[in-house]
Amino acid sequence: MIYLTRREIFRAAHRMFRQDWSDEKNSEVYGKCSNPNWHGHNYILWVTIKGEPSENHGFVMNINILKEIILRKVINKLDHRNMNLDVDFMAGKIATTENLAIAVWNELTPDIEKAGAHLHCVKIEETENNYIEYYG
Amino acid sequence: MIYLTRREIFRAAHRMFRQDWSDEKNSEVYGKCSNPNWHGHNYILWVTIKGEPSENHGFVMNINILKEIILRKVINKLDHRNMNLDVDFMAGKIATTENLAIAVWNELTPDIEKAGAHLHCVKIEETENNYIEYYG
Amino acid sequence: MIYLTRREIFRAAHRMFRQDWSDEKNSEVYGKCSNPNWHGHNYILWVTIKGEPSENHGFVMNINILKEIILRKVINKLDHRNMNLDVDFMAGKIATTENLAIAVWNELTPDIEKAGAHLHCVKIEETENNYIEYYG
Amino acid sequence: MIYLTRREIFRAAHRMFRQDWSDEKNSEVYGKCSNPNWHGHNYILWVTIKGEPSENHGFVMNINILKEIILRKVINKLDHRNMNLDVDFMAGKIATTENLAIAVWNELTPDIEKAGAHLHCVKIEETENNYIEYYG
Amino acid sequence: MIYLTRREIFRAAHRMFRQDWSDEKNSEVYGKCSNPNWHGHNYILWVTIKGEPSENHGFVMNINILKEIILRKVINKLDHRNMNLDVDFMAGKIATTENLAIAVWNELTPDIEKAGAHLHCVKIEETENNYIEYYG
Amino acid sequence: MIYLTRREIFRAAHRMFRQDWSDEKNSEVYGKCSNPNWHGHNYILWVTIKGEPSENHGFVMNINILKEIILRKVINKLDHRNMNLDVDFMAGKIATTENLAIAVWNELTPDIEKAGAHLHCVKIEETENNYIEYYG
Repeated sequence: MIYLTRREIFRAAHRMFRQDWSDEKNSEVYGKCSNPNWHGHNYILWVTIKGEPSENHGFVMNINILKEIILRKVINKLDHRNMNLDVDFMAGKIATTENLAIAVWNELTPDIEKAGAHLHCVKIEETENNYIEYYG
Repeated sequence: MIYLTRREIFRAAHRMFRQDWSDEKNSEVYGKCSNPNWHGHNYILWVTIKGEPSENHGFVMNINILKEIILRKVINKLDHRNMNLDVDFMAGKIATTENLAIAVWNELTPDIEKAGAHLHCVKIEETENNYIEYYG
Repeated sequence: MIYLTRREIFRAAHRMFRQDWSDEKNSEVYGKCSNPNWHGHNYILWVTIKGEPSENHGFVMNINILKEIILRKVINKLDHRNMNLDVDFMAGKIATTENLAIAVWNELTPDIEKAGAHLHCVKIEETENNYIEYYG
Repeated sequence: MIYLTRREIFRAAHRMFRQDWSDEKNSEVYGKCSNPNWHGHNYILWVTIKGEPSENHGFVMNINILKEIILRKVINKLDHRNMNLDVDFMAGKIATTENLAIAVWNELTPDIEKAGAHLHCVKIEETENNYIEYYG
Repeated sequence: MIYLTRREIFRAAHRMFRQDWSDEKNSEVYGKCSNPNWHGHNYILWVTIKGEPSENHGFVMNINILKEIILRKVINKLDHRNMNLDVDFMAGKIATTENLAIAVWNELTPDIEKAGAHLHCVKIEETENNYIEYYG
Repeated sequence: MIYLTRREIFRAAHRMFRQDWSDEKNSEVYGKCSNPNWHGHNYILWVTIKGEPSENHGFVMNINILKEIILRKVINKLDHRNMNLDVDFMAGKIATTENLAIAVWNELTPDIEKAGAHLHCVKIEETENNYIEYYG
């Protein structure tokens, strides 16, 4: 079993808050991350797939196919966007990196399976000090 | 002459646009950077000062004093904020990194001079592929 | 299951040696790492916890609580200190990164469990070429 | 169980292609990576071993022994070389990072076992956007 | 005066040697860098231009125009290529990073001037331990 | 004029203090950096030289000669050492990075001049947040 990882970056605005909470409650739980005027990050996404290298071409999966899936299903929707307002697969969810990683996993799985590989891990770094990993 | 550089990070939302331009014109000039719902970055700021090391303590400037100035005058106003809406020294300016670097220079200069040093360079990295330097 | 990782840095002096060995023996086993006048590193610590994201706030664990535990139990004791002489939880141990990672695990576990999460991994990088991971 | 990782770098030329395929076929599958005049990378190799820290000296394995094995068996054969033409353990294989990681694993295992440790992972980064991991 | 820097990466094979020298002489001067079967690097290129930010749009130069020039004149010719054999602007030159930086400067200058800006610096990193800067 | 930069790393212990000051005074000026039991860093040193590339071999200076000078005159004396106690060229000086950069400049200049090049800059990074540059 071989694991192949592809890195992509997206720059997005977001805000952590719950609409059913008061501003005080949101500020108490999320601190400055709940600023009503938004803030943002250069998010770094690592997508890891696993499989056997093909005897035919020597790849687990052609990286250009993997890249195309990640761009189409995830990056094009998130890059230079507002995670709360602009992204269909985050609608109605609290914009934590935890929820984002799960949503990205769900977006990517069908196309990666269709391409004959298996999704192993979605890792998202929000800042150089914090990151989330999800293994399904 | 010795040059001392301090790095600080802020995570901010912004949007590049001119209010006196149509959406089409803004989109033509600024592309996806003019998204009306904002986007954001982990900005990296490097502040370089210059001077002679003190024979008394061996520093150009005590780094804790430099850090306190940068946090108070710049980072606390930008971090987890919206550069267009929340930051007094960016009011009425187009939110390019060029304009931000000049504004940060103007914010920092008086306090650094008062502390007996000279501001040499403000460098701001917006993404790992782009950065701006301003030398006054 | 979601994994959340927090990075913190500490700058410490240390020396690898056994008091019950001669200088020759220490030098033979630990090389220049046994310099009697110490040397030091910018150590990078990654602490990974695991759990389910809360339906209430969307976090595995509030990162500010995790950060507070890491600073109080580990960083404040190691940063700008001598690992051999100043750090209670390293007393009587050989100051290898292996032993440090195990000690950090033991320091962090009770408070992280008390906060409702589970410690998954302690990773410590001594130089850009070497790091240690411990999973308990 | 403790995991120890050592990083080494090698700069190599390579070309992805199959001799039994036409140029068109190679170009279709491997794109610009099949350029007949070669291209190259600064490859980053991480070798992770696992074991119990010795009560005698506090290491899983003396890092200088691990480094010596990696240099002798892998780096000295790959660094400033052509992966397709100059490297005995890649002869007859398609020069993908997947195949390289498996070959490096096979090169390292006997000497690491002989030194009393166990190989856990070979990770090879080809560019900042792509890497491969192999766990045997 | 504002300085804007754009980073791009290319992966190329090369060999340092002079055709009018013997293999022994080449090996004596260039060491393993003269391997006849080539080796390669992930080169990192930083292009810095200078100018006044436009009052119209707030940029020194639209980064997409700068990027287009760098890709068309430099990256597309170097990426996944052999610097000695495939690159018109390196023909007949010794493939040192010094000569490459000068050649890249000469390639970029006319188009950057035509776009109304001034080239300030070409920086090329060959490995994490070595880089070259050229200011014209 | 071409600028060539070489990076080297050393891991050293140090303490900032003046022997003619009380512990209270040292602590007031240098804070935790004056810990009597020392602390340490992975210092990163960049040495930049300038010159014309040789028409003979295409280098400003053979990087192996530059590396040998840096190792012999600086790194071998600082790496895995105590900057205050073990390093001849820091004897009697306050162990700030400012004073270290000037001392490194003075150590390197004669050998670099003898090799036919000119020292341009000594840059030393103490942590990822602070660095010093000295141009003579």
